Amino acid sequence: MGNIQYKDRLQKCSEMMKAAGIDVLLLAKPANMIYLTGDGRLCSFAMITQSGKVALGVPKTDVEDVKNLAHFDQIIGFEDEVGMIHSIAHFFDDFGIRQGVVGLEYTFLTQSMMGMLTHPHGKPEKVTVKDCTPIFSQLRLVKDAEEIEHIRTAAKVADAGIKAAVEAMKPGLTESQIAAEAEYTMRQSGAEEFYRTYVSSGPRTNIAHGLPTMRKVQPGDLVMIDIHPIVDGYGADLCRTVCAGKQTAEQQAAYDIYLKAQQATITKVKAGVGMAELEEIFQEIVKDAGHGGHIFGPLIHGTGLEFEEAPLPPGHAFFHGEKESAPLPANVVIAVGNCGLYPGDFGVRVEDTVVVTEKGPLVLTNYPPRLEK
Amino acid sequence: MGNIQYKDRLQKCSEMMKAAGIDVLLLAKPANMIYLTGDGRLCSFAMITQSGKVALGVPKTDVEDVKNLAHFDQIIGFEDEVGMIHSIAHFFDDFGIRQGVVGLEYTFLTQSMMGMLTHPHGKPEKVTVKDCTPIFSQLRLVKDAEEIEHIRTAAKVADAGIKAAVEAMKPGLTESQIAAEAEYTMRQSGAEEFYRTYVSSGPRTNIAHGLPTMRKVQPGDLVMIDIHPIVDGYGADLCRTVCAGKQTAEQQAAYDIYLKAQQATITKVKAGVGMAELEEIFQEIVKDAGHGGHIFGPLIHGTGLEFEEAPLPPGHAFFHGEKESAPLPANVVIAVGNCGLYPGDFGVRVEDTVVVTEKGPLVLTNYPPRLEK
Repeated sequence: MGNIQYKDRLQKCSEMMKAAGIDVLLLAKPANMIYLTGDGRLCSFAMITQSGKVALGVPKTDVEDVKNLAHFDQIIGFEDEVGMIHSIAHFFDDFGIRQGVVGLEYTFLTQSMMGMLTHPHGKPEKVTVKDCTPIFSQLRLVKDAEEIEHIRTAAKVADAGIKAAVEAMKPGLTESQIAAEAEYTMRQSGAEEFYRTYVSSGPRTNIAHGLPTMRKVQPGDLVMIDIHPIVDGYGADLCRTVCAGKQTAEQQAAYDIYLKAQQATITKVKAGVGMAELEEIFQEIVKDAGHGGHIFGPLIHGTGLEFEEAPLPPGHAFFHGEKESAPLPANVVIAVGNCGLYPGDFGVRVEDTVVVTEKGPLVLTNYPPRLEK
Repeated sequence: MGNIQYKDRLQKCSEMMKAAGIDVLLLAKPANMIYLTGDGRLCSFAMITQSGKVALGVPKTDVEDVKNLAHFDQIIGFEDEVGMIHSIAHFFDDFGIRQGVVGLEYTFLTQSMMGMLTHPHGKPEKVTVKDCTPIFSQLRLVKDAEEIEHIRTAAKVADAGIKAAVEAMKPGLTESQIAAEAEYTMRQSGAEEFYRTYVSSGPRTNIAHGLPTMRKVQPGDLVMIDIHPIVDGYGADLCRTVCAGKQTAEQQAAYDIYLKAQQATITKVKAGVGMAELEEIFQEIVKDAGHGGHIFGPLIHGTGLEFEEAPLPPGHAFFHGEKESAPLPANVVIAVGNCGLYPGDFGVRVEDTVVVTEKGPLVLTNYPPRLEK
């Protein structure tokens, strides 16, 4: 991506910092650093001033690599945690910031990391701290054409990954072995990484976060597979539920209701619609079918540099330090079907990655949703 | 694992809580919850009183699953974040705790999660908070026979994974494709999960955290592969560096020095030796060979329910909220070779998982360290 695009992002960021009363950002979250500089990695930080100056601190081993990837004004390589704190002090001094407000990522930083980034040998005493999460939720909300292309490619990789997992799935395999098929194919098909793969089977499909275990799939089990490949930093989100054999009438009925609700919600995706409104459409159909109490967690979330990012539905957003989102603008990318229908003995779920456009939904994940293998 | 073992752990925990002035623990970190209750999962919490009472809060979908896996006295299933806060309030009330100190995991909780767990609708006003990280570092430090068996099995899976990756590795493959081979084999060989796989190649082997990219391996490149399979919750840590072709004399020389230092350090592993002492042996050999400035980050760390856990070397420990560790007792498990030798154009690294015993080191990972494929 060109330097001009980063300048444009920094310009927007600067305006939001002014509005939020933040003088300088001190970032450690890779996704936010990537967005503003082109690179983000573990054990690193970026300081961004209101005037758009970018200073990076990275492990000394990584300086050359970062120089090739990032847009920045200054860089320091440090040896260890003490060096990291000293480089923060150096940049505060160099920017002439002795008082004011530094923005920190409250939804990312652990208490211990907070302690490190605000260490008295780093941060000037009179500089106070403030959460900058809402700035990044807002900044990263609308995707540009290049970002959507990355997500589109990730969605194709997800289609390939889910196909491999579904085709391999059979009684006797462990959940972990099914995850292996999806992950292997995603990496072979162009994903540089993936976020955590979920595979659950049988009664485990009823739980909220079905990480794979050594449970072996039994004949007639439902199997829920949720994958998140990353291409050029951007993720897609895709979930399918399939049956290892012949599904029962009860399983099929629950699946049909869920799929109906998910598809009806996707149909309503369009610039100007709100997250709460979309959730309501989904919930209404599930409730009308007598499954009102069988949904857990938010049904929709944004996807991009993180597989789960803003926009989040109102309640969830609040507890994740986010503001309630305004009606969705065009070119926001969301995943619809983030939680399943959990009647008790089993669960069903279908999730797709969808671009919000002026005309309606543009669905990027295309593997057919079907309970039969 | 039997109920008696959990009771024993709770008993030890209780003593440490008393010594630390903590009346009740409010845990959200899966590894800590697993250790004390037998289950730990995302979006859940465990409250542990000084008298050893265990109360769990989990997504309502997960109640039955948790009942099958965990040892506890009380459980509540909640619907959402508000429900989670209310169940925390309920347990505080039920335990009769209106004042005192609640222990929280400062090295795990983000600022936002802190806000949720100490929400005024949950935590009583007069209850103050304190970091409980050191309790768990101490509690989990020495592994019992069953834990060591899990790590031994994980080490065998790591051997299988690295073998698959090394044998598949050739010019033209992406780093991601090489990671795919290791991960696929680990899941097929009995891992239920794995922590993040690192694969870097060519100049990227010089960076501190070489996550796989779409870079294609070139003839003559070094390739660094670092894997962390999980078996029954426990992880092993294994890294090998191999050459995609014929290594240069410079590459071989750096590798030989690193391997010499790593092996010499492992030889000295024994109950009663300190982490700082082991690091010194490693550093000394590297320094004597003229590479003193080419090491980054801690060389040794513990492994167990997390692939990187206590004991950590002194400096690193401090910044991760840990106390400096006492001389290593028997049955601590460590990974030796956590950071590489980074001369600038390339890096080399070899890492193995080792049990500290009264007699000396018991090396669990056995794939031969060799630069030639």
